[in-house]
Amino acid sequence: MTSNAAKWFPPAPTTPKPTLKVYNSLTRQKEEFIPAAGNLVKWYNCGPTVYDASHMGHARNYVTQDILRRIMEDYFGYDVHLVMNITDIDDKIILRARHQYLIDDLKKRNPLLNQELIDMTQDSWEKYLKGKVLKSIPSAELEAQSSHLAAQWQYVQARVLDPSWLQEALQRDEKFSMHITTLETSFSALEVARMQMNAGSSSETAAATLIDKSKDTLALVLDEELKHTVSDPAIFRSTAAFWEDSFMADMARLRVKPPTTLTRVTEYVPEIVTFIEKIIANGFAYSGEDGNVWFDKAAFDGAPTQEWKHEYAKLAPWSRGNKALLAEGEGALTSYSSKRSPEDFALWKASKAGEPAWPSPWGQGRPGWHIECSVMATDILGESMDIHSGGIDLLFPHHDNELAQSEAYHNNVQWVNYFLHTGHLHIAGLKMSKSLKNFITIEEMLETWTPRQVRLSFLLQLWNSRLDWNESLQTEVKARETALDNFFVQTKALVSEWDAAPTPQNGTWKYGKDEKDLAAELYRAQHTFRTALCDSFNTPQAVQALNDLVSYTNVYLKRGRSATNISSIRQVAGWITKMLRMFGLGEGSPQEIGWGASTSASGGEDVSADKETVLMPYLRALSTFRDEVRKKAMAKDPHSEFLELTDRLRDEDLVPLGVALDDQEDGKALVKLMPPSVLIKARDDKKALLAAKAAQKAAQKAAAAQQQLAKLEKGKLSPEEMFKPPNVPEGTYSEWDAKGIPVLDGKGEELSKGQSKKLAKAWEEQAKRHDAWLAHLSQREGQSKE
Amino acid sequence: MTSNAAKWFPPAPTTPKPTLKVYNSLTRQKEEFIPAAGNLVKWYNCGPTVYDASHMGHARNYVTQDILRRIMEDYFGYDVHLVMNITDIDDKIILRARHQYLIDDLKKRNPLLNQELIDMTQDSWEKYLKGKVLKSIPSAELEAQSSHLAAQWQYVQARVLDPSWLQEALQRDEKFSMHITTLETSFSALEVARMQMNAGSSSETAAATLIDKSKDTLALVLDEELKHTVSDPAIFRSTAAFWEDSFMADMARLRVKPPTTLTRVTEYVPEIVTFIEKIIANGFAYSGEDGNVWFDKAAFDGAPTQEWKHEYAKLAPWSRGNKALLAEGEGALTSYSSKRSPEDFALWKASKAGEPAWPSPWGQGRPGWHIECSVMATDILGESMDIHSGGIDLLFPHHDNELAQSEAYHNNVQWVNYFLHTGHLHIAGLKMSKSLKNFITIEEMLETWTPRQVRLSFLLQLWNSRLDWNESLQTEVKARETALDNFFVQTKALVSEWDAAPTPQNGTWKYGKDEKDLAAELYRAQHTFRTALCDSFNTPQAVQALNDLVSYTNVYLKRGRSATNISSIRQVAGWITKMLRMFGLGEGSPQEIGWGASTSASGGEDVSADKETVLMPYLRALSTFRDEVRKKAMAKDPHSEFLELTDRLRDEDLVPLGVALDDQEDGKALVKLMPPSVLIKARDDKKALLAAKAAQKAAQKAAAAQQQLAKLEKGKLSPEEMFKPPNVPEGTYSEWDAKGIPVLDGKGEELSKGQSKKLAKAWEEQAKRHDAWLAHLSQREGQSKE
Repeated sequence: MTSNAAKWFPPAPTTPKPTLKVYNSLTRQKEEFIPAAGNLVKWYNCGPTVYDASHMGHARNYVTQDILRRIMEDYFGYDVHLVMNITDIDDKIILRARHQYLIDDLKKRNPLLNQELIDMTQDSWEKYLKGKVLKSIPSAELEAQSSHLAAQWQYVQARVLDPSWLQEALQRDEKFSMHITTLETSFSALEVARMQMNAGSSSETAAATLIDKSKDTLALVLDEELKHTVSDPAIFRSTAAFWEDSFMADMARLRVKPPTTLTRVTEYVPEIVTFIEKIIANGFAYSGEDGNVWFDKAAFDGAPTQEWKHEYAKLAPWSRGNKALLAEGEGALTSYSSKRSPEDFALWKASKAGEPAWPSPWGQGRPGWHIECSVMATDILGESMDIHSGGIDLLFPHHDNELAQSEAYHNNVQWVNYFLHTGHLHIAGLKMSKSLKNFITIEEMLETWTPRQVRLSFLLQLWNSRLDWNESLQTEVKARETALDNFFVQTKALVSEWDAAPTPQNGTWKYGKDEKDLAAELYRAQHTFRTALCDSFNTPQAVQALNDLVSYTNVYLKRGRSATNISSIRQVAGWITKMLRMFGLGEGSPQEIGWGASTSASGGEDVSADKETVLMPYLRALSTFRDEVRKKAMAKDPHSEFLELTDRLRDEDLVPLGVALDDQEDGKALVKLMPPSVLIKARDDKKALLAAKAAQKAAQKAAAAQQQLAKLEKGKLSPEEMFKPPNVPEGTYSEWDAKGIPVLDGKGEELSKGQSKKLAKAWEEQAKRHDAWLAHLSQREGQSKE
Repeated sequence: MTSNAAKWFPPAPTTPKPTLKVYNSLTRQKEEFIPAAGNLVKWYNCGPTVYDASHMGHARNYVTQDILRRIMEDYFGYDVHLVMNITDIDDKIILRARHQYLIDDLKKRNPLLNQELIDMTQDSWEKYLKGKVLKSIPSAELEAQSSHLAAQWQYVQARVLDPSWLQEALQRDEKFSMHITTLETSFSALEVARMQMNAGSSSETAAATLIDKSKDTLALVLDEELKHTVSDPAIFRSTAAFWEDSFMADMARLRVKPPTTLTRVTEYVPEIVTFIEKIIANGFAYSGEDGNVWFDKAAFDGAPTQEWKHEYAKLAPWSRGNKALLAEGEGALTSYSSKRSPEDFALWKASKAGEPAWPSPWGQGRPGWHIECSVMATDILGESMDIHSGGIDLLFPHHDNELAQSEAYHNNVQWVNYFLHTGHLHIAGLKMSKSLKNFITIEEMLETWTPRQVRLSFLLQLWNSRLDWNESLQTEVKARETALDNFFVQTKALVSEWDAAPTPQNGTWKYGKDEKDLAAELYRAQHTFRTALCDSFNTPQAVQALNDLVSYTNVYLKRGRSATNISSIRQVAGWITKMLRMFGLGEGSPQEIGWGASTSASGGEDVSADKETVLMPYLRALSTFRDEVRKKAMAKDPHSEFLELTDRLRDEDLVPLGVALDDQEDGKALVKLMPPSVLIKARDDKKALLAAKAAQKAAQKAAAAQQQLAKLEKGKLSPEEMFKPPNVPEGTYSEWDAKGIPVLDGKGEELSKGQSKKLAKAWEEQAKRHDAWLAHLSQREGQSKE
């Protein structure tokens, strides 16, 4: 067959389809994206350490990753398997959980205020003052003061009022202001408690209030004295679980799709132990006598492999040896006695009293921070993955250490093909921090901003750039949202009208030059959009393409309703809708046009698509009704016309929509939603019944009239003629009086008195009947003349 | 930066991502799909000729094309611009419209049964018998019979009872049975009519019944005699419009997405004329003296072009010269007097009496069938397109002629890059036809099958193969649907339980070997699915991949609820859901898992709770409005009250529901669904503006009243007192007249004449002012008493 086919030229594209390139932290440039196997994308994303409320920095990171994931899945059509972990073993969690437990325990032990509690609180306050505040004030300054603590506290309180002094203190310790606040709060609480004790007050909440207001100072003392009593793993897990739930709820409110697979460190400890054993076996880790296991950086870096050689700190070689970063990576509770070299890092940490612990060949302990990701990603995704992502703050040491230990385990050189790092978030030019009082939790943010506005603001910035959450960005977000909202309100109204009545008033079929230009503009926007997303997910450019198309289309719409080709509008608005929804900006359930009304995180004013589909026919009925009432209301004498209208609405318009209006005595109809078929049947039955009744009535009336006529017809004969032939046989009578009553019978003989009386009575009766007949005749004549 | 980066190896895929190949009728093999420009796919699909109800053959064609389109748009992510035409100028439409018009006209002319009508019907019956039935019976058979028509009819009626005789007759004319039925129906109707005439019955429906039951025979005669009277183009357009609406409604019920752009031939006649002129100018067409324009096949075939040469019948060279196909392509009303060669075909047809006509350089006429598609596709998509599609029955001559004339116009050799033809549909092994009584309209089909079942049955067959709608296919469809339904019921229940309470009883976080195996199976299914769709849209294989994955997962689920990793289930069921919805099999609004409950085409009588929740507030507003209109309508002088009501509905009741009614000049308000907050603000702003205006007006009024009062208060003093103390200083005057005008000055001397005159004038003026003041006082008193 094929051999005799006509010549065919394979298409040579004028504009080639762009291919996706992504910025890869491993090469620090954009690389063509090639999945390792077909269309599958194996992706690991570093999840949160759950010990506190999520903030805007988390929002930036996870919403941005969600945008990238949606682009990969719903725009480029990849089959993505996204794994994310929850870090639920961590020094910060341990401290937070232990402190909370000890504080709760203290409350239980002190249901009522007592001197011992006050003394203990005073003691902890002094320790906190010395340890957290005075420690960071230059000794020269303090030596000039009285050695009495109260005097020193007064001195500090006076000095913090001097901004330049405070600035210097904050440079020494960024938490300085926080510590002052902690001490002030506890100080006041202590004063109140002392007064209550003196007054002999036995308020049940007094002890709890003192403890709560002094919990940061008390925790310091309690932890020192009692941490060895905290050993139940459930204590640590329940704190982690609480903040994990809080994180998940925040993500749901931000419309972040849950990962395909979610993992927790607490559920992976045996696998982690096995993993570390293999790294040791491969010669890239060692254990110390203190029960810690360390990664052996010196053994690893430069060690030859089959393909190439191992390299340490591929992502951020410039951060190698950065002590602050390394220390933060290890956590506050790590001991370093067995560590051989500064760049070595903990794979396994021996647990001390008050720390959760799992069994291992190196004694009771717990995993180091970095190892968990290597183990979980390997377990689920195998010996390598396409994408690894995380916030830029994880670049070093976390991700570099993760790469090193994973490649040490697998003995390969490219555990991750593409490493994506989302950019920082700043608030009005400054790093977000609790000390700077510009720290915003997700919950706080969602009081003022809708999830869509948050997401739109992130889309307007490159995913891997720093984002500054400032007024100009906020203004821009609102302007763009409004432009899109106005566009959808307008186009939806036009499309919906046309669908209801495709008349020349509501639009046109004409496909002229303007429509061709509009299509060309759409094609251009589609190409720009794709090119932008292929250029390492350049969402600002992609969103700009949508806004530009909206502006162009708004000019087209100025031609007026009757000159608008609705298919063209549907095509443009439909594509914009699809792309916005692809980015995760859609609200409500998908519909042909529009992205729904922006809702607050909790839902709010939802005008969702489905709702719209359901409602529109009803609203149209209502609106039409109202239009007609309005028209009639402007005319004269509307009385009966109005009643007709209301009846028609009830019996004709609403019946096929399945709405029954049952008129009630009180004038307020009962509204019922019912199957249309039932209503139609009921209405038609009622109609038929009324028709049958009318027919019956008409038949009865006709029968009565017939009867009446028959009766009347008996009077047709005049009494004067009734006893004369042919009404009686010839020869019955031979003479009659003037009225026609017989006098003589047929034989010429006079009638008997009885006979005469009888005849006279009959005559009178007929005379009455005849009068009625004559009256009927004249009435009939009168009617026929009318 | 890049230079000091660690070594990175570009991924070398183990399994390359398959590329899309499509079966191209132009090469009769699968070709890699390459769009001409980037990601844009320009696509033209041949739409229906609208003259009758759509049947299952249409369903197969349009649903299958809808599947291909959805795969291109929603799976491969192409930006598709799909153009489809409606053929609303066609000989079949002309005949159908004209017959219907003439039959309706005959009814109007014969409100009552009459002998003339009976005779005419008898006459038409005989002509039909001769022309349609006897003509196709071998003359030898007929000659053996009486030459009387009634006898010959009796003979035929007897013979059709013999199946083998009938079979032969059907082979000669496939409509033979249909003709017999037509004659039988008319024959009975004639008998009834004759009895009614003899009985003198004057039933009003008698004439109409006779005409309706004999409409096919009558149309034959009426058309011959009266077709010249049918000239109004609205007659033809209204028939086309009716069947177009019917087609669109059928497509909507089958969940076929409307094309991006829909065109109609009646709206493209001037463009068609211009197009034909250019083909003539290019030397590939000629006009005849009869007003027809013909494509010049001989001039075209083999003519050199810049790239190659023109070729005729590239799609179906084996059909060249097939007279039956060529004749059907030309239509029943074409005259051939000016045609030069058998393979030439009409571009423009002169219109005879009773045929719609448009002006052209060649006289009044209308477009040939094939030319419309060339013109409309060129107008909207430009000088070439990526895909042209249509049913396989259009391959020749329609698509070959379309290609020839388009390439003759553009002087290019590849107007279409990929030509896709959907396969035939057979019913239980036989071609569907009215004669075989296996003809099923879409409406009939949807009485028994849901739109989803229909679509699933088409997915189970290759798009370009013949599909046999038989019992085994039906059984298979139901089995597969049930398997998927059961799977979704099960997985949805598990996921929903887990989401409500993620306890060990309801599932596990554990990601063990079984979960890894399940993920591997999912990856395999995803790859098989993609490979199948890339292999020229092999949907049967793709659906099989989904069913296989369901089977595998069902085995996994047998481990029991507590051993089930819910994320894994969500991942698998979520992907299957997405793919089914991509195929257009989804029902209801998209959700995470499941394809909804299969509904009948009409959507069934759904009184769901959700619908009720959504609707009730709106309906209550509507009903309250109606109640009040009703109440007022029963009262007197409702004019302004009604306007107030309609305003209140718009400004008060609908605003919080998020419904904006924009009153328009034409009295028909535009209904918009918007966020209530926006509407409330707009309304309140308007109210505030009106209130501000009213306040301003009130202030102006108060100021004017104040001014007026000040003026009036000048008349407080009576003129009698005005020249007496204390109104003038003591001793100014010493004597006054009766009116109180001074006579002597303070010194007892008489006043000068000038002075007296001045005082008298002042007195008069004050008297006037005082009168005004008194009038004001009495008016004010009157008001206060009211």
